[in-house]
Amino acid sequence: MIVAELLRKKRDGLTLSPTEIEELITGIVHGSVTTAQAAAFLMAACIRGLTEAETVALTRAMAHSGTCYDWRSIGYAVDKHSTGGVGDKISLLVAPIAAAAGAIVPMMSGRGLGHTGGTIDKLESIVGFTVHPSDEQIERQLRRLGVAMFAQSAKVAPADRILYALRDETGTVESVGLITASILSKKIAEGAQGLVLDVKIGRGAFMQHINDARALAQMLVAVGQGAGLTVRGVLTDMDDPLGCAVGNWVEVQEAEGALQNPSECPADIRELSLYLAGAMLHLAGIASSQQDGMSRAAQVWENGQAYERFHEMVAAQGGRWQESVARYVSTPSLTVESPRSGYITGFSTRQIGLALVELGAGRKRAQDTIDPAAGVVLHVQRGNYIECGAPLFTVYATDKERIPPCAQLLLQSIEIEESPPLPRTSLIYEAVP
Amino acid sequence: MIVAELLRKKRDGLTLSPTEIEELITGIVHGSVTTAQAAAFLMAACIRGLTEAETVALTRAMAHSGTCYDWRSIGYAVDKHSTGGVGDKISLLVAPIAAAAGAIVPMMSGRGLGHTGGTIDKLESIVGFTVHPSDEQIERQLRRLGVAMFAQSAKVAPADRILYALRDETGTVESVGLITASILSKKIAEGAQGLVLDVKIGRGAFMQHINDARALAQMLVAVGQGAGLTVRGVLTDMDDPLGCAVGNWVEVQEAEGALQNPSECPADIRELSLYLAGAMLHLAGIASSQQDGMSRAAQVWENGQAYERFHEMVAAQGGRWQESVARYVSTPSLTVESPRSGYITGFSTRQIGLALVELGAGRKRAQDTIDPAAGVVLHVQRGNYIECGAPLFTVYATDKERIPPCAQLLLQSIEIEESPPLPRTSLIYEAVP
Repeated sequence: MIVAELLRKKRDGLTLSPTEIEELITGIVHGSVTTAQAAAFLMAACIRGLTEAETVALTRAMAHSGTCYDWRSIGYAVDKHSTGGVGDKISLLVAPIAAAAGAIVPMMSGRGLGHTGGTIDKLESIVGFTVHPSDEQIERQLRRLGVAMFAQSAKVAPADRILYALRDETGTVESVGLITASILSKKIAEGAQGLVLDVKIGRGAFMQHINDARALAQMLVAVGQGAGLTVRGVLTDMDDPLGCAVGNWVEVQEAEGALQNPSECPADIRELSLYLAGAMLHLAGIASSQQDGMSRAAQVWENGQAYERFHEMVAAQGGRWQESVARYVSTPSLTVESPRSGYITGFSTRQIGLALVELGAGRKRAQDTIDPAAGVVLHVQRGNYIECGAPLFTVYATDKERIPPCAQLLLQSIEIEESPPLPRTSLIYEAVP
Repeated sequence: MIVAELLRKKRDGLTLSPTEIEELITGIVHGSVTTAQAAAFLMAACIRGLTEAETVALTRAMAHSGTCYDWRSIGYAVDKHSTGGVGDKISLLVAPIAAAAGAIVPMMSGRGLGHTGGTIDKLESIVGFTVHPSDEQIERQLRRLGVAMFAQSAKVAPADRILYALRDETGTVESVGLITASILSKKIAEGAQGLVLDVKIGRGAFMQHINDARALAQMLVAVGQGAGLTVRGVLTDMDDPLGCAVGNWVEVQEAEGALQNPSECPADIRELSLYLAGAMLHLAGIASSQQDGMSRAAQVWENGQAYERFHEMVAAQGGRWQESVARYVSTPSLTVESPRSGYITGFSTRQIGLALVELGAGRKRAQDTIDPAAGVVLHVQRGNYIECGAPLFTVYATDKERIPPCAQLLLQSIEIEESPPLPRTSLIYEAVP
């Protein structure tokens, strides 16, 4: 393979063969393709686009660039992935729910990106919790509990790690083909056979238009099929923060509380968790339909089995729950009262995510450390009526000097008006296919 | 400047401002723009194209990325550049001719590229000749002789050196905008005010179609104007090797012989040299017209002043002519006879260039060393009749084992047929503007 010739082909809008793509990816990982050549490929792929066949080849090559797990001796492995939101702690619920209902969930997650949170950051707020269990421990846990939640290690899909960093550097993030290959290659490498993909749309999401989200979902489904992964895309609303908590520990706490007391769980968390867990159970062949999957999910949630599974997983990965609760109870906080009476009509959700990054709950650069205690708990959701002077939200942060500026930003992000908003309908827009 | 944002702009087909391009180039030279980002820019520029304004800004930024010479205190500096050919030793003639006729010629040249030769490689075949004179020596020589021929040093247009190497690596060589900026930035940096550009077309050139060559010439003229360099493009035929010698020392010897004995000079060398030197003298304001320039060029050629200037320059740059002649006289050689009688109807000129690279006259990789003695002297030109058994060409190389395979390739590159070809017309197609 002459790399420059291959780049010329893509540059001129021709299609690369699966073999060419595989050689390129192998070369990127082993160093025979230079960083400059990889960057040039990303730019050409971004401008010229990737065909479905090219994306399948890229997905396969990236998935097989490192360790590939295989859990078929245990059962059908199913996972859920979200394109990123604000207050999106749904993974913390659906993983134990699906496992409690009989699924095998090897959930390899990422860290926060831009204004959105990441499951790994949330889990690390639990004292002692390791997001880097050994391969043996992951297997042991999947056999015993059906669920393990862990970070992408250096040996899994190294091509994706290299290209992901390069895309950020070279302004080539926004490419449906590259996004698809990045998401799916990691899921194939983690050993998933089925994947429920939560494609988020709205003021707190990366995508604003349902057509874009549908196109991405369709691409993910088609490429997944080509690469041997069954994908169900679910287009969901991400206009408002999900639930009331946004941050790391505050979200873990909200998820744990929701699992413990289903009746007190915010309606949006409940709807989305049941739908996505139901889809996982359906994909895994445990449920006969989406509806049956949702019933089974509701059952293990109501009877406490999902709550129990959550704590078993936390303990298995070294997490010390009571110690965590005790540690965070003393986090400095500030409760802000509503400056006027009125209805909550909406949120500048992306701004809330960015305010939380400023507070320390997220990173501006990859090397930044985060404050696991940093977060906000909203005391209202869209449609609620609030009296002037009633508590509107509470901000938490270890460094209390960071609290007032964040509170100011958050206050500007909550819309309070005299008339109520339209009643909220379902968060679920559609499923693909 | 956020580099990734700037790359996104170019990626999406938007136009970069002169300031953005300048910041990008400065960043590339100073390291704040990474190699990956530079590579992504090149690919985006290659696919999206560069506007004339962008190319002007790129040319200026690259020219001013390092030392810029200024010879205006000596006179109007004029240069000639060729897009590359086989047997193209015309620079070795026009530089001393134009200088003998009164022009100031600071000629900064390159090395061989692909199947084409480079003036610097040719000059280095002269024993003792330095292609890296000091700035003081260049100036002294321009004042005394009006001519200096030298290689691009590290401090001249460093942005071009970086991007030139990256383009080769990333398959982004073929871009009119990038080619234009690369050629013109070096000429502006060397201090030229006027440039005659020999854009070659045909079997021995990089371009095969006159429309492509015309588009490049027009772009070079327009961008030169925008960047403060007066450019005259001349579209010329490069179907057959120029003259009879192809290689390094053999070409220097042919050029020297042509300067010494104008009456024995091959017609193609004579026509092209007079036209291009004439254009240089016209641009420099020494001649009142192209025709007048050609007359003046012919005059200093006929009266021996150009020949004398050539030797003065060689001596000034440390070259030892007699010693060179003595050294190369013992080069192993092989004369191949014509396998049949007939007319020479043409040459696979690119193949001849590639055969010479195999012989050691050129490089396959930048770090290869070359054999200055390696070369071929054709004993025929297009249209000549040759008897079976008469000498067809002589191959020279220090490593005599390389000679037979090269001779074989050369034999296949010469077309001998029963009927004569159409009579050859002018090598000059047209001038732009």
